[in-house]
Amino acid sequence: MSYVGHGGKEIIERVITDPSEAAAKIRGLAKIPIRGQIAREIIGIAYGFFSPLEGFMGKADVAAVCDRMTLASGAVWSIPIVFDMSDSELAEYGIKEGDTVLLTYQNQPMATLEVEEIYSFDKVKIAQSVYGTTEEKHPGVARTFAYKDKFVGGKITLVNQPKINEPFDKFFLTPIQTRQKFAEKGWKRIVAHQTRNVPHTGHEWLMKGSWLQTHGDAPVEKIETGLLVNAIIGEKRKGDYIDEAIVLCQDVLRTAGYFREDTHLTSITLWDMRYAGPKEAIFHAILRTNLGLTHHMFGRDHAGVGTYYDPYDAHRIFDQLPPGALDIKPVRVLEWWYCPVCAEVAYMGLCGHTKERQNFSGTLIRSIIQDGVKPPRLIFRPEVFDLIMETAEKYGFGSPFVTDQYLQNRNPVFTLPPMGA
Amino acid sequence: MSYVGHGGKEIIERVITDPSEAAAKIRGLAKIPIRGQIAREIIGIAYGFFSPLEGFMGKADVAAVCDRMTLASGAVWSIPIVFDMSDSELAEYGIKEGDTVLLTYQNQPMATLEVEEIYSFDKVKIAQSVYGTTEEKHPGVARTFAYKDKFVGGKITLVNQPKINEPFDKFFLTPIQTRQKFAEKGWKRIVAHQTRNVPHTGHEWLMKGSWLQTHGDAPVEKIETGLLVNAIIGEKRKGDYIDEAIVLCQDVLRTAGYFREDTHLTSITLWDMRYAGPKEAIFHAILRTNLGLTHHMFGRDHAGVGTYYDPYDAHRIFDQLPPGALDIKPVRVLEWWYCPVCAEVAYMGLCGHTKERQNFSGTLIRSIIQDGVKPPRLIFRPEVFDLIMETAEKYGFGSPFVTDQYLQNRNPVFTLPPMGA
Repeated sequence: MSYVGHGGKEIIERVITDPSEAAAKIRGLAKIPIRGQIAREIIGIAYGFFSPLEGFMGKADVAAVCDRMTLASGAVWSIPIVFDMSDSELAEYGIKEGDTVLLTYQNQPMATLEVEEIYSFDKVKIAQSVYGTTEEKHPGVARTFAYKDKFVGGKITLVNQPKINEPFDKFFLTPIQTRQKFAEKGWKRIVAHQTRNVPHTGHEWLMKGSWLQTHGDAPVEKIETGLLVNAIIGEKRKGDYIDEAIVLCQDVLRTAGYFREDTHLTSITLWDMRYAGPKEAIFHAILRTNLGLTHHMFGRDHAGVGTYYDPYDAHRIFDQLPPGALDIKPVRVLEWWYCPVCAEVAYMGLCGHTKERQNFSGTLIRSIIQDGVKPPRLIFRPEVFDLIMETAEKYGFGSPFVTDQYLQNRNPVFTLPPMGA
Repeated sequence: MSYVGHGGKEIIERVITDPSEAAAKIRGLAKIPIRGQIAREIIGIAYGFFSPLEGFMGKADVAAVCDRMTLASGAVWSIPIVFDMSDSELAEYGIKEGDTVLLTYQNQPMATLEVEEIYSFDKVKIAQSVYGTTEEKHPGVARTFAYKDKFVGGKITLVNQPKINEPFDKFFLTPIQTRQKFAEKGWKRIVAHQTRNVPHTGHEWLMKGSWLQTHGDAPVEKIETGLLVNAIIGEKRKGDYIDEAIVLCQDVLRTAGYFREDTHLTSITLWDMRYAGPKEAIFHAILRTNLGLTHHMFGRDHAGVGTYYDPYDAHRIFDQLPPGALDIKPVRVLEWWYCPVCAEVAYMGLCGHTKERQNFSGTLIRSIIQDGVKPPRLIFRPEVFDLIMETAEKYGFGSPFVTDQYLQNRNPVFTLPPMGA
């Protein structure tokens, strides 16, 4: 079975599964240790999350992304995926164009990189075109400016498959695996819900509403519409929900019956958020196209930060794409709020009680969690609440929010197994 | 501005608005008094609710409806629209093919009928093909068998426009008027909600859910999706909600803010329910096509009665139509129930708490109303509840449900004004 990914090409899989083949492939290669972001992006490339990318971008791709929001090939692409090295590192490892090198992580071999191009690129230009700003307060701009001075472009091949650790192991599905799951389930329409949150009922209705919108006028005798909750797992910031709480609490919405078993699935994608607002919305749409989704929900202020983007910029950018540029449909939605007049969670597109509305405030929800007092089940599901407390104890050193201790001592999301080389 | 109705033809309007023209037209014609059902169907034909019908059906149309669920022209049609007379009446009035006669109602001229065809038709065949049964317990079958022995087919022309009485006057919109309203509102997608009920929150969510399904992946910066609540007003049975309560309580959902002002509209169609289940669903789809709707919500057991139809027969029949047979899309939905675990109204397609679910039972809601104790606002909106009580006093002789007194003494829905002839 072959699957078509973003850009109309077959889903990329660049993974050597045979140990002796892998051992032969890496023999004698110069070893370059990489940081977590790069390791996560290798996983993204190797399993096809980033199809049609086969490796880190060369200069022509980065230029096209900045100038036209496409790859050099013309396929839509909004965020550069680059591997950065300093001149001194390049000199130290003696790397030049035409070489193949071995990228290592956690002191283990991870992937080979065919060095096709070593180049520099104007980071200010990247910042301006991707983020619309060059202010370093913007975390995506800061990440861009922190890149070392040279980019190394070329194909990668995963030679050592990461072992995904508990509790993430159940939720790591590659694009080919999600498509197989969807086929098993008989889903014909599937909407993506992007998340980095523990869900309250406002989130639940964002998902339920977009599921209804995606279902549209399809028949109902057999439900063939699904929701994929796809959690972004990557670099954490202090105060974020811990990853374990996010994934497990999203999943419990189904196991506790708030979603039917046959309509809901949770999975993860490894990715360090760029907070690029509209550009990140496009990137998420590409990711989920590769995962086999037909629709993608975009709410207010998708992947935004601070006041850099208008809350609906991430909606509008889809109107600027030429027809057929994406094989996934954006389901753009307004807010769901708690309406005391309706006595329920209500949709901004339907509920007229704009004066009485009570927004779901992240701050309020956090304070509820910190107080440890069970909120009403119409606002926060008790199963979710209990599980937050459990995951805090089990994974969070007592806190459901990221602390220094968590950053330093958490069990890694994945581990590269020892590899005889 | 011309509007295309069902069957691809311009919306029918067969109405003479000029009084002297009308007076000239009816001069000297034999007068035939008609009953309420026929008067309501004349209004349906004359204003285009029943487009492309221009009058009561001839034999070829009735045969095609029975045999193929189409008109003789091939356009889908599911319920015969016939004018019945007995042989003795025909003899008494001396009516023969080629005549034009004047149909009178409330002792006033109403419409001319060009007698094209006088024929008999097998009522058992009609019953079997439209209702799937010949049991007289079925109210549609009973209505069929009660038809007099001859049918008179031919074009009608409304010569005396009915005055729609308060409180229905605000809600009577002809197909051309609904289309004008939709254009004013800028609605591009409009879903019909068929009702004969005072709404509880289960109904409200049927409407909200189908609105979301109809909205689909349309943009949200300007909401261009509307809901038309179209109440069927016709012959009443004891125990039904009184018409005034239905219409006013549906409308108050918007004025009290449960629907946004720009997403909701209430109107009425005059029609005596046939309870034909799937065949009536098709008929309702045709009606709402003529009203300019793009989508039509069909819930569980649409227009059914007793156990004659499977609860989802009215969904399945749409799959049997050839592509393009209807210009309206059926939005087929499962139930919305009250879920005590979710603590809200929940959708059967999403909520997994099938054991805990509490169905909205008509009987329960009636008993709540009869007790006069305000139910929780999550189940029944207080504005709706108060208005039921008000309408009971004002229009229902103290009862929100139809009584003998209401049947005998209610103010008529419409009045034919005196016409100099």
